[in-house]
Amino acid sequence: MAPGTGSPDAHLPRPASSRATAVGRIAVVDVGPVHEAGRWPARAVVGEAVPVTATVFRDGHDLAGATAVLVGPDGVVAAREQMVPLGRGLDRWQCRLVPHAPGEWSFFVEGWSDPVGSWRRDALIKIPEGIDVDLTLDVGADLLAEAAQVPGVTRGQAALLEASAAIVRRSDGDPRDRLAAATAPEVLEILRRHPLRHLVTPSTPYPLRVARERALVGAWYEVFPRSIGARFSSAHGWESGTLRTAAVGLDRIAAMGFDVLYLTPIHPIGTTFRKGRNNALEASPGDPGSPYAIGSSQGGHDAIHPDLGTFDDFDALVARARDLGMEVALDLALQCSPDHPWVSKHPEWFSRRSDGTIAYAENPPKKYQDIYPLSFDNDPEGLYAEIVRICDLWARHGVTIFRVDNPHTKPLPFWERLIADMATRHPDVLFLAEAFTRPPMMHTLALVGFHQSYTYFAWRNTKTEVADYLAELAGDWGSYMRPTLWPTTHDILTPFMQWGGEPAFMLRAILAATGAPTWGIYSGYELIENVARPGSEEQIDNEKYEYKARDFTAPVAQKMSRLLGELNRIRRAHPALQRLRNLTVHPTSDDATVCFSRRLDDGDTASAAPDTVIVVVNLDARAVREGMVYLDMGALGLGPDGVFDAHDELSGHTYRWNSTPFVRLDPWTNPGHIIHVRPVRGTEADPT
Amino acid sequence: MAPGTGSPDAHLPRPASSRATAVGRIAVVDVGPVHEAGRWPARAVVGEAVPVTATVFRDGHDLAGATAVLVGPDGVVAAREQMVPLGRGLDRWQCRLVPHAPGEWSFFVEGWSDPVGSWRRDALIKIPEGIDVDLTLDVGADLLAEAAQVPGVTRGQAALLEASAAIVRRSDGDPRDRLAAATAPEVLEILRRHPLRHLVTPSTPYPLRVARERALVGAWYEVFPRSIGARFSSAHGWESGTLRTAAVGLDRIAAMGFDVLYLTPIHPIGTTFRKGRNNALEASPGDPGSPYAIGSSQGGHDAIHPDLGTFDDFDALVARARDLGMEVALDLALQCSPDHPWVSKHPEWFSRRSDGTIAYAENPPKKYQDIYPLSFDNDPEGLYAEIVRICDLWARHGVTIFRVDNPHTKPLPFWERLIADMATRHPDVLFLAEAFTRPPMMHTLALVGFHQSYTYFAWRNTKTEVADYLAELAGDWGSYMRPTLWPTTHDILTPFMQWGGEPAFMLRAILAATGAPTWGIYSGYELIENVARPGSEEQIDNEKYEYKARDFTAPVAQKMSRLLGELNRIRRAHPALQRLRNLTVHPTSDDATVCFSRRLDDGDTASAAPDTVIVVVNLDARAVREGMVYLDMGALGLGPDGVFDAHDELSGHTYRWNSTPFVRLDPWTNPGHIIHVRPVRGTEADPT
Repeated sequence: MAPGTGSPDAHLPRPASSRATAVGRIAVVDVGPVHEAGRWPARAVVGEAVPVTATVFRDGHDLAGATAVLVGPDGVVAAREQMVPLGRGLDRWQCRLVPHAPGEWSFFVEGWSDPVGSWRRDALIKIPEGIDVDLTLDVGADLLAEAAQVPGVTRGQAALLEASAAIVRRSDGDPRDRLAAATAPEVLEILRRHPLRHLVTPSTPYPLRVARERALVGAWYEVFPRSIGARFSSAHGWESGTLRTAAVGLDRIAAMGFDVLYLTPIHPIGTTFRKGRNNALEASPGDPGSPYAIGSSQGGHDAIHPDLGTFDDFDALVARARDLGMEVALDLALQCSPDHPWVSKHPEWFSRRSDGTIAYAENPPKKYQDIYPLSFDNDPEGLYAEIVRICDLWARHGVTIFRVDNPHTKPLPFWERLIADMATRHPDVLFLAEAFTRPPMMHTLALVGFHQSYTYFAWRNTKTEVADYLAELAGDWGSYMRPTLWPTTHDILTPFMQWGGEPAFMLRAILAATGAPTWGIYSGYELIENVARPGSEEQIDNEKYEYKARDFTAPVAQKMSRLLGELNRIRRAHPALQRLRNLTVHPTSDDATVCFSRRLDDGDTASAAPDTVIVVVNLDARAVREGMVYLDMGALGLGPDGVFDAHDELSGHTYRWNSTPFVRLDPWTNPGHIIHVRPVRGTEADPT
Repeated sequence: MAPGTGSPDAHLPRPASSRATAVGRIAVVDVGPVHEAGRWPARAVVGEAVPVTATVFRDGHDLAGATAVLVGPDGVVAAREQMVPLGRGLDRWQCRLVPHAPGEWSFFVEGWSDPVGSWRRDALIKIPEGIDVDLTLDVGADLLAEAAQVPGVTRGQAALLEASAAIVRRSDGDPRDRLAAATAPEVLEILRRHPLRHLVTPSTPYPLRVARERALVGAWYEVFPRSIGARFSSAHGWESGTLRTAAVGLDRIAAMGFDVLYLTPIHPIGTTFRKGRNNALEASPGDPGSPYAIGSSQGGHDAIHPDLGTFDDFDALVARARDLGMEVALDLALQCSPDHPWVSKHPEWFSRRSDGTIAYAENPPKKYQDIYPLSFDNDPEGLYAEIVRICDLWARHGVTIFRVDNPHTKPLPFWERLIADMATRHPDVLFLAEAFTRPPMMHTLALVGFHQSYTYFAWRNTKTEVADYLAELAGDWGSYMRPTLWPTTHDILTPFMQWGGEPAFMLRAILAATGAPTWGIYSGYELIENVARPGSEEQIDNEKYEYKARDFTAPVAQKMSRLLGELNRIRRAHPALQRLRNLTVHPTSDDATVCFSRRLDDGDTASAAPDTVIVVVNLDARAVREGMVYLDMGALGLGPDGVFDAHDELSGHTYRWNSTPFVRLDPWTNPGHIIHVRPVRGTEADPT
């Protein structure tokens, strides 16, 4: 990363409208990452390398070059990177830019004519053939002298270039020596870093929104607070857990290395049409109801369920989480029970049926009479102000992430405005979209502002499905949509998890922890809770409708907790696992063994050393699988004949691997490898 | 095509900057055809159906709809088309818009909520189940009554909708009958044409530049005017043809059905470093020199070579061409011989070498001392003004197309500005780019304004190459780049043409005439001139460097001329062959037999009838080929079991074909079929 100038730059591109033509002197087109020419910004987090690409070329026979320029939220140039050609013949260039703070950044690409490169190409043909020798070398000497004046060239570098120019110009010298002086490695290296650029032509600037690192990287743990510390006695029936008992339970979660404590809704719960256990239409006495049926006479989205405690208790929970290194995410489920205070105070925030009654949720022929959806079209400003007030309230009580329930059933411009307004009030607050719906809505929610998105990960189980989906998430989508991978949630228990036993829970945890920088675990995963309510793909005795006291001291829970903790430890130890767009899928011979790697180069990591991790997982929960892995060695920073020490972070074993290792994975004892690549000296890739 | 309102529309979208959010109430994203969000306009010609696509969806469970709106150069809405879903699950919509005049058009897409469709979906579930019967039907009746008020609904249609509403509302009726009244075919048809639209949300407007039809459709014939009527006598040597003798030769060209007469440069030719025959470094006495070495003491780009005649002669040639139904294209080769008047009057328009001399063209180690390239960076305004003057001069003398030689060696903003300025002065003038270079430059030349582009067609010879390339040209590229297909030019004689004999010339003519709406023939094609200068891929005794008197009465020329004339006749008879984006490639069993079709639907053609043409060509110039064709019947407007009369426009034979006809093609007698599809009654595709 070349240092920025540190001062406002007079050469920032002019707006497009002031140009006579849409193309500039040197063509710069198809710049990326750009979404609809900047309708929405590209995204990154602090310290994330952003791959910038552009098509840059010029007229005639001279060569072109390209520079990517990163501009900070203050309008000051933060970095300039020389772009390098991406393959041959298509004039495509690339480099990486790394923003170092949150905010609204921008970037642009400068195309330029490369007089030195053009001269060198021609001189290397003409001088050996004796064509126009003095004339050609004089031009070269002039260019070297001009290159010595390029801003950023040190005095020492300038002196070297000028000395070379003097040799090149010496008409009594051997032409071969004169040419060699202009093409010496140390001269080329200075020119590579500080090229002489003619006809510099900037593209229009494109927006890049930078968030704090948690928007990309995190390990989440989901709880229903009322379950933590809930107790059953035959005398009193169930006694709810509280925010205070939940706070006590945090030590166990933090010990596993989780970063984010996600709380399902903690508000008062309606009683009208309250659902009973297992989604029964009628609740029995003592059934606590679904926390998603928000609102009662005790309050709405701005209140805490009295069984859980008070705002003081909430503040204490947040403080305890912080002490343990965790932040708190709260569910934002914008819907109401019929008992929500808004129903009487603001009936205009709901739809009415033609008989005048307020419309409940429907999916014909099903009716959900316990839920009143909000209508955002009757009094958009009034409802908006109230929701901003609520988000602000919770943010002031230490909530730093909102996990938004079903955002795809609310208007997109509502989210775009809310997230932008919250960014002004609480720059650190993040929004996670729980939209399990069609791709255009999921992608557009990300574009309009959601920092993170749930994904289809739970339904991608075969080798091809997993490999293709992880590659999609890490590809172009990675410039705006940050995925979160959850093996299960309180709503999702796929057939694979229902029937795969403990091996399924182990292998899916390994995939989720390494397949993207953010993963999430729903409480109870440790106990392999895998029995579905018949006819559904969610758990029987679902915690949504009842208390669930769990014994995490059971041996199976101890074993799985150790694995989850190991996975979080490995994620922290390896910066390569904390990035999204650095993924390569490697072919394997076995059709249930998937392999991918993540690599960070020198310039991408805070530490000096590159980091490379290979993940190999047996996706078959019922059988030992074995076969060859065909490693793309270049993607590992190795030459084709390289060998390396493959240190399995899960087992602690170290193997000596070449490009085609043999792997054998037992779903019960070692369902996957997480290999730290430790090159053996002399096998690194050629640095050119 | 629904008629436009014909008056300025108050509901045209506001500019994006006046919106609080980048997304609107209903999401409209990824609208096409759009290039970098409108940095350059999409393109069409008058009467060409433009395929418009967009991703449109809404929040919640209600259905969305989409309307595409076409706005004329006067800002008046010219057409509104209801878009239809493109496949399932991805919320992608499409329709076609047809502009009816040249100019700067625009289009946008309106997303909307579909209350009637949403109601119908739910009612068809609820009414049969007896759920909320009266409530649901009352809502339906209200919606039908509201639909009767939609602008554009006729009084008769409104009466029908209101009558239906009355039946739907009748609480004493059978609910099934009431529902049936709301879903009757005639009701649905009115709603399909005039949907009730809520929350209408326009996208930003996108530019669409519309040119006259010749920009897309034409048959070109290239000549060196000095060759037509040139005579050799042993007494006087060569006597140049003139513009007057060329005019006499036009009858033969027009008789073959060509639309455009393309003249290579007609300006004075330099003598300094003049090239001799076969590109010899020294000219012999009497060698006329290359017309691309422009300029002598007799004048430059604004002059006519004295051997060819005067401006009066030129005007007469243009008039004769017009009388014969042809327009005249002139070469625009912006380079100079050392004798060009600009060299002394405007040395600042050239580059200088470091010894002070003007730089000639080089491609080290080769030198082209007969050519001085222009430099556009020393005095851009002065040079620009002079070139505008020259283009204007020729346009005033009736040139309607400039065939631009090597545009990729001049700056792109120069072309963008020149073509825009010429569009103001001479709206009918078109520019064809002769840029045989890398794809980004070719595509960007099209984007910045060139109306037509030479292509790689001559180098695409195998079945896969031909099929893939024609599909690429007809695909997304078709929204901005209009291809021209030339089997040969004065610069291009590929190995395939050198070695394939008369069959190669026949089959490549068939491909060029049908593979795109514009094709071109270089004079002498009729005589199968296929001998290359050794070591080159252009003709020996190249017309660039000498006179070429041709005897078109030779039998081989008569045969080939008949084929060229037939091809032009077939092109005129079939509107499907006059369009670009309507191509489908069909698989074949033989690896040298290529098959593609072009189809226009009812709405796309000026005439009422659809037009469908299938082209099958044997690409093997040396052997009879035979095998099956696997027709995509849907692309032909037929059902999978359809049969049709396949009328071969080339042979006059008619066959009865189904979806898998057998074909046998002899490269000497029938190298290809051009099949007019004549459906047999009852086999048309289901119109749904």
